[in-house]
Amino acid sequence: MKKEDLQIQGMYIVVSAPSGTGKTTICRRLFRLCPALRFSVSHTTRPPRPGEVEGRDYFFVSREEFEEMANRGEFLEWACNFGHLYGTSAKALTELMAGGSDVIVDIDPQGARTLKERCPGGVFVFILPPTLEELRNRLARRRSEPPEVIARRFERAKDEIKEYIWYDYVVVNDRLEKAVSHLQAIYQAEKLRSFRMEGVVRGLWEGK
Amino acid sequence: MKKEDLQIQGMYIVVSAPSGTGKTTICRRLFRLCPALRFSVSHTTRPPRPGEVEGRDYFFVSREEFEEMANRGEFLEWACNFGHLYGTSAKALTELMAGGSDVIVDIDPQGARTLKERCPGGVFVFILPPTLEELRNRLARRRSEPPEVIARRFERAKDEIKEYIWYDYVVVNDRLEKAVSHLQAIYQAEKLRSFRMEGVVRGLWEGK
Repeated sequence: MKKEDLQIQGMYIVVSAPSGTGKTTICRRLFRLCPALRFSVSHTTRPPRPGEVEGRDYFFVSREEFEEMANRGEFLEWACNFGHLYGTSAKALTELMAGGSDVIVDIDPQGARTLKERCPGGVFVFILPPTLEELRNRLARRRSEPPEVIARRFERAKDEIKEYIWYDYVVVNDRLEKAVSHLQAIYQAEKLRSFRMEGVVRGLWEGK
Repeated sequence: MKKEDLQIQGMYIVVSAPSGTGKTTICRRLFRLCPALRFSVSHTTRPPRPGEVEGRDYFFVSREEFEEMANRGEFLEWACNFGHLYGTSAKALTELMAGGSDVIVDIDPQGARTLKERCPGGVFVFILPPTLEELRNRLARRRSEPPEVIARRFERAKDEIKEYIWYDYVVVNDRLEKAVSHLQAIYQAEKLRSFRMEGVVRGLWEGK
């Protein structure tokens, strides 16, 4: 990659959390505050939930289509979650960034881990529930699932929380507005990293 | 240092800039927004400017006192700037941090460099003027100094700007409110670094 290319490249921010922590709501609020931010739309084999829109929330594909994409190496990461496949298309993410956009990637901790290993340069944010009790309640309220599935989700969530330390930042979702403003501060600060300010400093010299 | 000590320790943020960039005004505004932030008061041999208060803006000391402190190794860094000595007392900074306070250190780039080498773990922010022309004007307006001193300050400022890359963040002071809000975002984000969130995550487990 040439130096000039780097100048126009956007950054990507992974927002990840155990199931039921409210990360998708936080991300949607952030988009309202930062309309220039783009969203990396994942592919999934799970059926749409009510209100979910093809191409906005996910690209909904069959298992066969998904596996073909995976075999062609089109996913930066993909993972199986409770029987459904989820993947981040390399093309979608890199095209957005090459166009200069900053991109939010909303994926589960397993996918986040793979992305961190395969695509250096991202910013990794982990969202925590206010308490484990509250997380258990949210999991129970959210979907009409049998108690044993909810219990499994809760156990997995606890395992995922133990992984928080390899993320760059941790945001606690005890109050939605606060969590959104914290995520926004992280985004703002990361834009001001000195290695991302090269263009600004060059402008200073050229404007002289 | 024991692990327990680390938990209550505050962080320090160095705000540094070429002379005339407005860093002191930005820091003062930040203190209004974040009253819990503390300020690391430097020692100096230069005489007070109008409005400057002993113990708030600086500890004003004689050259003899300063040199004695330096000889006793009481400064984390000290530097000579246009004939006057400036130093950051180790005791003042570490006591504030040990008490759990986050501390702003407002020092020139030379001192910032020494602090970075000697005290790992700080966050380093470099403030840039909007344009070099504007910096030259500010230097000329600000003090009644002979043109050759202003010219020397301007040349040094240009050399200092070339060093921006080893700082963690760069903030452009083209509009005061914006610069302050950027500095605040950096502070907020740094508080959310995963390695600083250990206590919060532990609380999650204990609250279960």
